[in-house]
Amino acid sequence: MSYKAPIEDITFNLKDMGLLGDVLPLPGFEEVSEDVVEAVLEENARFVEEVVAPLNVVGDREHSVWNDGQVKTPQGFKEAFEIFAAGGWQGLQHDAEHGGQGFPKVVAAATSENLNAANLSFSLCPLLTDGAIEAITQAGSREQKETYIPPMLEGRWTGTMNLTEPQAGSDLALVNAKAVPQDDGSYRIFGQKIFITYGEHDMAENIVHLVLARTPGSPAGIKGISLFIVPKFLVNEDGSLGKRNDVWCASLEEKLGINASPTAVLLFGSGKSEEVGEGAIGYLVGQENQGLQYMFVMMNAARYNVGIQGIAVSERALQQARQYAQDRVQSNALEGSAGPVPIVNHPDVQRMLTTMRGLTEGARAVAMYAARANDLSVNHPDEAIRVSNKAVYEYLVPIVKGFSTENAIEVASLGVQVHGGMGFIEETGAAQYYRDARILSIYEGTTAIQANDFVGRKTLRDGGAVAKGFVKSMHETVAELKQYANSRQLAFIAAQLEIATRAYEASIDYVLETAKAGNMRAVFMGSVPFLMLSGYVHAGWQLARAALKCQGHNEAFYTQKQSTAVFYAAHLLPRVSALSAAVLAGDLAQESLAYLKTV
Amino acid sequence: MSYKAPIEDITFNLKDMGLLGDVLPLPGFEEVSEDVVEAVLEENARFVEEVVAPLNVVGDREHSVWNDGQVKTPQGFKEAFEIFAAGGWQGLQHDAEHGGQGFPKVVAAATSENLNAANLSFSLCPLLTDGAIEAITQAGSREQKETYIPPMLEGRWTGTMNLTEPQAGSDLALVNAKAVPQDDGSYRIFGQKIFITYGEHDMAENIVHLVLARTPGSPAGIKGISLFIVPKFLVNEDGSLGKRNDVWCASLEEKLGINASPTAVLLFGSGKSEEVGEGAIGYLVGQENQGLQYMFVMMNAARYNVGIQGIAVSERALQQARQYAQDRVQSNALEGSAGPVPIVNHPDVQRMLTTMRGLTEGARAVAMYAARANDLSVNHPDEAIRVSNKAVYEYLVPIVKGFSTENAIEVASLGVQVHGGMGFIEETGAAQYYRDARILSIYEGTTAIQANDFVGRKTLRDGGAVAKGFVKSMHETVAELKQYANSRQLAFIAAQLEIATRAYEASIDYVLETAKAGNMRAVFMGSVPFLMLSGYVHAGWQLARAALKCQGHNEAFYTQKQSTAVFYAAHLLPRVSALSAAVLAGDLAQESLAYLKTV
Repeated sequence: MSYKAPIEDITFNLKDMGLLGDVLPLPGFEEVSEDVVEAVLEENARFVEEVVAPLNVVGDREHSVWNDGQVKTPQGFKEAFEIFAAGGWQGLQHDAEHGGQGFPKVVAAATSENLNAANLSFSLCPLLTDGAIEAITQAGSREQKETYIPPMLEGRWTGTMNLTEPQAGSDLALVNAKAVPQDDGSYRIFGQKIFITYGEHDMAENIVHLVLARTPGSPAGIKGISLFIVPKFLVNEDGSLGKRNDVWCASLEEKLGINASPTAVLLFGSGKSEEVGEGAIGYLVGQENQGLQYMFVMMNAARYNVGIQGIAVSERALQQARQYAQDRVQSNALEGSAGPVPIVNHPDVQRMLTTMRGLTEGARAVAMYAARANDLSVNHPDEAIRVSNKAVYEYLVPIVKGFSTENAIEVASLGVQVHGGMGFIEETGAAQYYRDARILSIYEGTTAIQANDFVGRKTLRDGGAVAKGFVKSMHETVAELKQYANSRQLAFIAAQLEIATRAYEASIDYVLETAKAGNMRAVFMGSVPFLMLSGYVHAGWQLARAALKCQGHNEAFYTQKQSTAVFYAAHLLPRVSALSAAVLAGDLAQESLAYLKTV
Repeated sequence: MSYKAPIEDITFNLKDMGLLGDVLPLPGFEEVSEDVVEAVLEENARFVEEVVAPLNVVGDREHSVWNDGQVKTPQGFKEAFEIFAAGGWQGLQHDAEHGGQGFPKVVAAATSENLNAANLSFSLCPLLTDGAIEAITQAGSREQKETYIPPMLEGRWTGTMNLTEPQAGSDLALVNAKAVPQDDGSYRIFGQKIFITYGEHDMAENIVHLVLARTPGSPAGIKGISLFIVPKFLVNEDGSLGKRNDVWCASLEEKLGINASPTAVLLFGSGKSEEVGEGAIGYLVGQENQGLQYMFVMMNAARYNVGIQGIAVSERALQQARQYAQDRVQSNALEGSAGPVPIVNHPDVQRMLTTMRGLTEGARAVAMYAARANDLSVNHPDEAIRVSNKAVYEYLVPIVKGFSTENAIEVASLGVQVHGGMGFIEETGAAQYYRDARILSIYEGTTAIQANDFVGRKTLRDGGAVAKGFVKSMHETVAELKQYANSRQLAFIAAQLEIATRAYEASIDYVLETAKAGNMRAVFMGSVPFLMLSGYVHAGWQLARAALKCQGHNEAFYTQKQSTAVFYAAHLLPRVSALSAAVLAGDLAQESLAYLKTV
């Protein structure tokens, strides 16, 4: 099925919800206007709908194919990437200094969602490249920036992140790739990296691998890891490509989904390059032993973007299910009808579709709200505002990542269910979203890893300050909703949001107090439920705010938006209390599960 | 990974939970003793572990393959089916009259779970054959029984259910296959059926298709559908196989999962048989126009069995995830350790594993409890007890089907998550369960169809009598738990079960009252949440009862069982209240979703 960029909902967030109004006046965005944003969104929609979306099914069927170290991407990918590059899409949100376009993140979040919805596998290449640009921008030398960033922004080269090794997945302390210093200041890298997305492909001239490895004598654990640039082809002084480096793709993984995206096993320093000899030539980024810190820059950008992927797959699955529900005729209407009716009339199909819609639009509103905070944190002239918004953004990143991707699995699964038996047939297309979505809660940090970050760095570190700030804002929204006393729907949302906000607050308090008491196992027994309930209440809050913005409007879009908010309050906000009960039972849970411990 | 039949938990249900003790004294089970049951379970375990389980991965890779109307099942399937047949497994729970072994359903539920856990695709063939045997037993003529049942019990022939047509999925009123009466009393069947599981294969000599079709002049809708036996090969008077009938497999579907199980498009009456001419020869089962009623017999047996499949896949996914969590070493222990530890020590991995375990063991306990009711409903000498247990069994069937299969999706998804990145790699095996499980909440009636049945026939029809009977029993269990006042764990389970039971009761009342008021759309807006919350509370109740049975035992199994009950009370029982909130918001939900209606 074809994909249509959800311009209406994006515009609602940008305009009605005030994101663009908050961001456009900031220094640095002088050349960005509402009109320009509108034009960009239109151009982006046209590009992804016409060029990228049609390759989604093809890519799933063809896979990327390994042959003797070379990787061939599916038919049409290379050409689409050329158009992507020519359109300047890679540089949309990057600084103008090295050739980016300097758009606010609230805009880039939207265009990125559309690209990912059109084709998750395709979009992974720019996603990883974004991360590489980000890391070099933050930690690279001036020469490294000048050498590597412009070609990546232009889409001539792409980037990768090389963290994982067979024994080192979530635990990067176990990384043992070696970096041996050379007389000329460069290093020779040796080791094996796995799960490297677009680690090898035919869409660009060169690939800039960012690689974690250990220098001789470095401390054990995460404090002894350094970050290196290892280009597939070495770069001559004039920027042209030189010798083939000693990094090779040994194989690709056979995966459950995102089949078009090559997931590579990379060998560094296997000595297969006649041009450079044994050892992949690498260049240290920033300081030795600070690699993990730099990689986190890259990873945080990537985590936010993977959250966007979750929203993207959800939107795509929703569109397909909605279309099917409108087309498929089966069974008489509940109230009686002359004959069978489109299944969209049946209550449970409406429940499924609106659950999908609530999760998708709720998560989108949270992600775009987070993007606004990021823009303020970078561009606002007032330091206090920059600092507070940085905290808000960083608080929301694990929610955007964890919540939106767990949602994507549920939404894609409901998408299959709406199709009935046809959903299980690959030709229908719904199953691909169910397969593709399944990686999102795993890569760039599993949901448990997000939850660790959320509990530790985002809630405990500031004593719950940011979290409690949100609680206060949510109560304010409740109060505002209650002013519409003669609207049964708004009163209901107010009541449900109030219950959920209290459960959110109780969970925050439990986490703070239990951590203070030193019972960390009890806290972490509920860390994922805590993250998820925070996601549900934030999305519910955004939808409640959206319902307020709908007052005084009668157009179909606003009716549907308010309806979605009501339904979310009825079916999804109650999950907050259920998850909160699990969080609050942390001590009993950890006590009863003691038998599982082996150490 | 290899599969081990969960004999300990099955035995706990049979013995500690008293199922076998209630059933073995019944007339008809004179030859079944505890020892015999034990021997059967052991033999079943050996067979499925050694013969069937190793074919699971092979089958997923090879698929069943269509070639010019013939279907080749994967390597080893035919031989395994021969051993299955020789072992008499097809007949385990069927009447001795035609060659069955007459075991209670509580035992057959266990052996069936093990077979399905070993290999879902393989097990679908006996599952469908069971349904065919059931339908012919109930509605067939004496001659039909004698002709078709013994070869199916012996595993020489297999059976299928032919309901679905492209335009008639959940809505069987739209079936339009034709049955034209012939002078000799037989019929000629014309039409196309889709999604026919094991509609063609090479594992048996003959296939007995049970087919829904319309005779000339029959009423429109579901009241004009008749049931026919259409054998692939006609049967001679002496029972030998005769002419090739005019039913042909046009193609197999490419599916998300259960790849080894051939899902056929069958053409009836395409005229390709030179031996019988045009039109598939069929024999009316029972009365004309009563087909749907007979098919429901078959479907109800199949629905229960699909619920068992949900438990089976869950168990298999759990075993694999548990093993991985014990083997995979990553990150230091939360409390500190000399180095990285098996991930089973990490709180969130424990949460995931115990969620999987709670859902699996909870659903198993419900299903086996339902099987006991079925045994009592069939074999008890007292009619009143038969009648009341029939009502209990029928009440529980949509729960067993709907709840266990929705669980299976969640459990299989968590199984992938426990594996991290490895879970997304097909070679690992976890992804297969995630793919296979996805069909279970669709076939033999989607969860929405189960929920319709649950609301209409199982709750409203008797004015909530059976449902309220369960509420009473649950409150009794709460009271019993409260007697252990010095056990923090049992007191907690009591408190959580009490809250959940009240939410269950409130939902039942809402459904009864709202239906009485004629607001059916408000009821059905929450029908699936109502079914699911009933499942959660029933499973939680069974686990609470199990926790009581653990008192006075110190062995590891009992510690773990009680621990699972505590965890379930902490993390899963709260879902009852959340879903109940959705049920109770039915009117508001239906009001706000009115915009979706197209008629």
